[in-house]
Amino acid sequence: MIEIMNREVITKRIRSIRRELRNQGTDCLIVINPANVTYTTGFIGSDSWALITKRQTFLLTDSRYAEQAQKECIGCKIIMRANSEPIAQAAAKLVRQLKSVRIDNVRIERSVSLAGFDVLQKSMKTRLKAADSIIESLRSIKDSGEINCIRRAASIAAKAFEQILCQIKPGMTENELAGLLDFQIRKLGAVNSFDTIVAFGPNASRPHHQPGRKTLKRNDTVLIDFGAKYKGYCSDITRCFAVGTPTAPSEAGFVNFYKRVFDVVEQAQATAIKMVRADAEIVWIDAAAREVIRKNGLPVYEHGSGHGLGLEIHELPFIKAVTTGRLQAGEVITIEPGVYIPGKLGVRIEDDVLITKTGCKILTRSCPHNLSIKKLKDIFR
Amino acid sequence: MIEIMNREVITKRIRSIRRELRNQGTDCLIVINPANVTYTTGFIGSDSWALITKRQTFLLTDSRYAEQAQKECIGCKIIMRANSEPIAQAAAKLVRQLKSVRIDNVRIERSVSLAGFDVLQKSMKTRLKAADSIIESLRSIKDSGEINCIRRAASIAAKAFEQILCQIKPGMTENELAGLLDFQIRKLGAVNSFDTIVAFGPNASRPHHQPGRKTLKRNDTVLIDFGAKYKGYCSDITRCFAVGTPTAPSEAGFVNFYKRVFDVVEQAQATAIKMVRADAEIVWIDAAAREVIRKNGLPVYEHGSGHGLGLEIHELPFIKAVTTGRLQAGEVITIEPGVYIPGKLGVRIEDDVLITKTGCKILTRSCPHNLSIKKLKDIFR
Repeated sequence: MIEIMNREVITKRIRSIRRELRNQGTDCLIVINPANVTYTTGFIGSDSWALITKRQTFLLTDSRYAEQAQKECIGCKIIMRANSEPIAQAAAKLVRQLKSVRIDNVRIERSVSLAGFDVLQKSMKTRLKAADSIIESLRSIKDSGEINCIRRAASIAAKAFEQILCQIKPGMTENELAGLLDFQIRKLGAVNSFDTIVAFGPNASRPHHQPGRKTLKRNDTVLIDFGAKYKGYCSDITRCFAVGTPTAPSEAGFVNFYKRVFDVVEQAQATAIKMVRADAEIVWIDAAAREVIRKNGLPVYEHGSGHGLGLEIHELPFIKAVTTGRLQAGEVITIEPGVYIPGKLGVRIEDDVLITKTGCKILTRSCPHNLSIKKLKDIFR
Repeated sequence: MIEIMNREVITKRIRSIRRELRNQGTDCLIVINPANVTYTTGFIGSDSWALITKRQTFLLTDSRYAEQAQKECIGCKIIMRANSEPIAQAAAKLVRQLKSVRIDNVRIERSVSLAGFDVLQKSMKTRLKAADSIIESLRSIKDSGEINCIRRAASIAAKAFEQILCQIKPGMTENELAGLLDFQIRKLGAVNSFDTIVAFGPNASRPHHQPGRKTLKRNDTVLIDFGAKYKGYCSDITRCFAVGTPTAPSEAGFVNFYKRVFDVVEQAQATAIKMVRADAEIVWIDAAAREVIRKNGLPVYEHGSGHGLGLEIHELPFIKAVTTGRLQAGEVITIEPGVYIPGKLGVRIEDDVLITKTGCKILTRSCPHNLSIKKLKDIFR
């Protein structure tokens, strides 16, 4: 296993950021987004900011994280603020102390809250400028250590999914099934990359359904959207399947329709994945997946067709109809078309793919798709 | 069980907010904070804003939440934005359409990101004003439905804690124990109110430790900081205990020291809780807890002594040395002093209390404190 966070990796990242800052005439970037703080310092705690100047990197944290910062930070100076001092005020104080920084040439990430921005401006007695997504753009292209982590996060999620397949039985609640899956992810040494979605039957028509007390029926359908986070890096998978075999003719009719929808969604996903490669235009990938669903007479999903993933579960690039630009080698994205019919069903299939020069690698191959839970179990076996 | 979200409750809240807006001469408040959106509309999804005008309330959401918004929203008009449209832009468009709103009299919550704020200002072609914590202040005082939910969230957390006591055994990892606890919370029909902290032995000296692969030793100490969220409302509990009975004299020496620290922290907490009542000055409560630790010659913790809790895990009021103001009847706060000695130990004891006119009610009484896991099990039995 390649160590993801070492001095060489961090140094390279900081060098790229400094190049960008130099081009903009910026002396100091205040980094707010926790994923960006991790990316530039190695620190994975929260409530902390980083400051990147021409010569130094600082982590601004507080006593709760003193030990952790010592352990995790690479190549940066750790500054403790008093717990009673707002972080924006402490950042302003630090900036004013830095001789190499001209106060008018400081930028702050746009994700700062208006409240934090106001405090900073007041404390620094200057009009502060916002920075564009410098670090977010860098982060979209993963190095080999990062790709290994995402691959591992995907295989942990797949393993957890396999474990719960045998535990699914009629009468259990969505909540319980989500809990079982989360436990397996923990047991495998990871944490959830986001709140697990488990939706039984028609509940799946809500793309962001929150698992509840609904119990599983004998011939129900299940949608699970889940992921693991390993060493800070996320995986994101959605699987749908039917439990049991229908007996009544009305049930069989539904299962046939569900099966058709499942096949169309799978085909939409495969069509999009086939187009994924470095330099492919993002809008066309999005359009291709939607077109398969449209031409099969099913309602076209309104969410994006996918998103980048890494230190954050949703990051650049976003696979949407409005995204200008092309895919780049080294990006990792999800492809996740779906069909939603309120009161009836929801089917979404989501995999994580690494973009290469000539195509892509599916990182979630260890987690098979199949409509039948029985077949899924067989494949895993 | 009282229904927490009904028309009467929401109407009362909106009326209070409108009174405040009138006093400020504000025609429309744009609500950003998800907890505030829930509080004013009933909607518990994310990525959605609320707009409160003199006459109407709007929920601005997107198609992923169409069904959920229909089901949950009370007394407000649901507006769908296109998924491709930034929410700030959609909000600006909505505001411009409202005849009763003068564009210069719109305020937005300060928690908006600078990016969102810029989009809004540009789209509205005006200098937008920020709103102070109107809804956060209202939220600090809980009604009976909310108190019942927090009480239930506390009893679910206590029950989950009881369940895992019997499952704790040497060799298990922090990660696994956290997973077991989370599963029990799910099984009891709730979700975590935040990421569970499990720290074995000296790991507990980091107040915000993330559970890892460390395994439990025969005579280890354990710190667990956990909570359940029930119908949107949070509980927050920390318990510390020792597993097994020490045999070697060096172990006995450590356990005696741990026991002394435990007693001091418990006493610090009891001292603070005794002072809790409506009209008590917050700084004195904070100081009293610290003083017990200081006078016993132990290092005084640097985090706050507690915080409000409700729809958010950390909300007003904050029990800190710098907080001006007094407690109010109906507030629910944690009291959580601790002692941290890096490389050696960490002990924190945290309970949730409801402030009343004459004192307080401990909502986490169903979750006992005791140094010995054996005694804890006996108490539950």
